[in-house]
Amino acid sequence: MELYTDAYYMNEAFKMAKIAFEEGEIPVGAVVVCRKKIIARAYNQTEKLTDVTAHAEMLAITAAANALGSKYLPECALYITLEPCVMCAGACFWSQLGEIHYGASDPRRGFSQISQYLLHPKTKLSSGLMAEESKQLLDHFFKKLRN
Amino acid sequence: MELYTDAYYMNEAFKMAKIAFEEGEIPVGAVVVCRKKIIARAYNQTEKLTDVTAHAEMLAITAAANALGSKYLPECALYITLEPCVMCAGACFWSQLGEIHYGASDPRRGFSQISQYLLHPKTKLSSGLMAEESKQLLDHFFKKLRN
Repeated sequence: MELYTDAYYMNEAFKMAKIAFEEGEIPVGAVVVCRKKIIARAYNQTEKLTDVTAHAEMLAITAAANALGSKYLPECALYITLEPCVMCAGACFWSQLGEIHYGASDPRRGFSQISQYLLHPKTKLSSGLMAEESKQLLDHFFKKLRN
Repeated sequence: MELYTDAYYMNEAFKMAKIAFEEGEIPVGAVVVCRKKIIARAYNQTEKLTDVTAHAEMLAITAAANALGSKYLPECALYITLEPCVMCAGACFWSQLGEIHYGASDPRRGFSQISQYLLHPKTKLSSGLMAEESKQLLDHFFKKLRN
């Protein structure tokens, strides 16, 4: 896979989602990229941390801010395998992320179910990269959970 | 002040907001109460932690979950001096908080500007306790910041 492309970064986020899957977490993964470099990687850890706020995006935003020493991330791009929820969209807003690329849509809890305007007006948004793989991983997880 | 009343708990949250003020943070404070006991206290620490996700509610929800060893907080009440933003309302949703009592409304960034339905349907909501004091503290902070 060609380096430094959206597809490459989303695949890195997907690798994080697979780690979440292996650890019994709802499989969602994220990376944050700044000037082509991945400065944060995270996956959902709500079970391990016993903390509903430990979504992949939240952890990735916190880690990216630590890496840069800045609360605001206008020069950063977030790659996340699933559409952010309202909480995570709110965090994206506050961080003023430059770009958000999400994979699968979340028709139940995705922020766009509430409003397209939860993100910062300067944030560029795209979706659909590796959507099918990300959705299949989630479906597989919930199917396993039910059995 | 009478113990174990909403006014008492909100005053404890307000004490947290005053600590935030003294530390140069936007002065918002929170406590989480479970079976009459305060199990978490927190104030906004976005500056100190260089982290936009470090709102008082987020820190309080994480701390309360740690204290109880449970991600979900249906038997808990959150007292927060300012109306939660979208991010924090999303966290409140996921935690299934039993009650939320907020002080001052936030006409710019309060979740109710977006939708009244961001909270969990089982969460009881009230507002207005110590609203004037909480707003004055915020106004004082921003006035000082501008000078």
